[in-house]
Amino acid sequence: VTTHVPLGGGREFELVRRLLAVWGPQATGVGDDAATLDVPPNTQLVVSTDTSVEDVHFRRTWLTPEEIGWRATAAALSDLAAMGATPLGLVWAAVIPARWADSLDEMAIGVGAAARFAGCAIVGGDLSKGESLTLTVTVFGTAERPLRRGGAQPGDAVWVTGTLGAPARALAAWEHGGRPTDKDRSRFARPMPRVAQGLAAARAGATAAIDVSDGLVQDVGHIAAASGVRVVLQLDQLPLVLGADPLPAAASGEEYELVLTAPPSVDLAAALPSGVPVTRIGHVEVGGGVVTRLGGHVVEVVPGHDHFSRL
Amino acid sequence: VTTHVPLGGGREFELVRRLLAVWGPQATGVGDDAATLDVPPNTQLVVSTDTSVEDVHFRRTWLTPEEIGWRATAAALSDLAAMGATPLGLVWAAVIPARWADSLDEMAIGVGAAARFAGCAIVGGDLSKGESLTLTVTVFGTAERPLRRGGAQPGDAVWVTGTLGAPARALAAWEHGGRPTDKDRSRFARPMPRVAQGLAAARAGATAAIDVSDGLVQDVGHIAAASGVRVVLQLDQLPLVLGADPLPAAASGEEYELVLTAPPSVDLAAALPSGVPVTRIGHVEVGGGVVTRLGGHVVEVVPGHDHFSRL
Repeated sequence: VTTHVPLGGGREFELVRRLLAVWGPQATGVGDDAATLDVPPNTQLVVSTDTSVEDVHFRRTWLTPEEIGWRATAAALSDLAAMGATPLGLVWAAVIPARWADSLDEMAIGVGAAARFAGCAIVGGDLSKGESLTLTVTVFGTAERPLRRGGAQPGDAVWVTGTLGAPARALAAWEHGGRPTDKDRSRFARPMPRVAQGLAAARAGATAAIDVSDGLVQDVGHIAAASGVRVVLQLDQLPLVLGADPLPAAASGEEYELVLTAPPSVDLAAALPSGVPVTRIGHVEVGGGVVTRLGGHVVEVVPGHDHFSRL
Repeated sequence: VTTHVPLGGGREFELVRRLLAVWGPQATGVGDDAATLDVPPNTQLVVSTDTSVEDVHFRRTWLTPEEIGWRATAAALSDLAAMGATPLGLVWAAVIPARWADSLDEMAIGVGAAARFAGCAIVGGDLSKGESLTLTVTVFGTAERPLRRGGAQPGDAVWVTGTLGAPARALAAWEHGGRPTDKDRSRFARPMPRVAQGLAAARAGATAAIDVSDGLVQDVGHIAAASGVRVVLQLDQLPLVLGADPLPAAASGEEYELVLTAPPSVDLAAALPSGVPVTRIGHVEVGGGVVTRLGGHVVEVVPGHDHFSRL
């Protein structure tokens, strides 16, 4: 049941009314000082926040406003997916420069579409003006048994969802003044939060998970560090988009695919929903760090980008 | 118990480590894809998000970095206070321009101090670089019976916490090229989220609440609209900071005091914690809108500022 509290006057409230018209019954309970939600018993609350800034995380010429909204929302939902959580709701804080004001509805359509894909309500937000378009999406979900980074055990297999390499290729094309293929561009612009996959993996007995935001090897490094184990990745086995090379694909960020570990007895390819490939790409052993092997040799993967590297 | 997951490499993680050192045991469970929290049974989750942007919500010359962190956090916690909620945790998403990088620790100290004041853990965040300093604080709490805007009933009394008028005076001084008094400046720079007051009011039987962020009259208008009632405010009875006039005080934003309605049988002045004044300033009747009276006459209060008015 959608119960909007009547809103008072003011320019911001006109904008909020417009957004509520865009979202329809997807937006629930907006209009009080805070949103209220029911949390199912015997679950833990899972919360994550993610910011997208124009000219840091994307450029205006790369994405439509709808894609900007989708991408910011999908990136936040991807963190819930990596926890094996069921999305409950999100709040959207947007800083909207005057030059973007006419695109607000389109951005909201993208936010709504990504939220709908993940079964997530929109329960509140905050609108500010400012110089740089900045979207902060905070998502909360619930999990009976959250999937953490620290649960990987020696002997576990390592799996990854989807196919890798497209976002890095799209970014490289843009950065060299070219245009990515439609397929590569679409993988960067509309990442799919793997919510159903994360939930199924948690139920099937996965031991750890992370989403690939900075690059496969770099993100797997967090599992290795948190679990106190070594992860060995066989780059020959990486599921790649057509024509991609394994080394750049292993450093490609913005993938929002899930890396999962599970005991060798658990066949995640069979346990996860069909339609998205799930590929075994390595194993966990005693030790530390990440070892990457290709063609029988140990190779080094140059880390993907770090949004904060130039601070 | 504080359980930090070991973090992997990268510049952002060095900064996160620094923040964790600043916050100590106040920061819990940071380092996974998302934070996990226990929600007490028979409570509702209450969520709100609030953004502060440099040169929109404050100027660099007005506030210290610690005050910027305090203020952004207190503004978000104030929304929980207005719901009668008990804070559970917050996530902090910060866009930090290079010129602000050296002030990150000080800002974090301010975030931590405001969170500690409200008994709120820091459970996660996101750091980005960007052109404009932008702090988005998302808070979540729990309430057995959330205080909403829509519960005011004809016959209720209207109450306000604290004293009004200082932030408007501080802003006016700055905008005319002057300097506010230390007291006025401090009320703008370090607003106190009225968490204990909101919780006590909910328990005592308050029917509706809102925090004063846009100005008393404008915010009371939201209670009137949401409750389908008229609110009559006696501006002669407003609790004012020394030397303030009631008309500008009734339009002064950024106060972060609570306006509460309660049946006439409930003495909120007695029910709320001592130390902060709680003053009866009007009543609720059948009708709509807000009527402001001063010296026996109906007067008009010019609305406070609207951050979004220039979009």
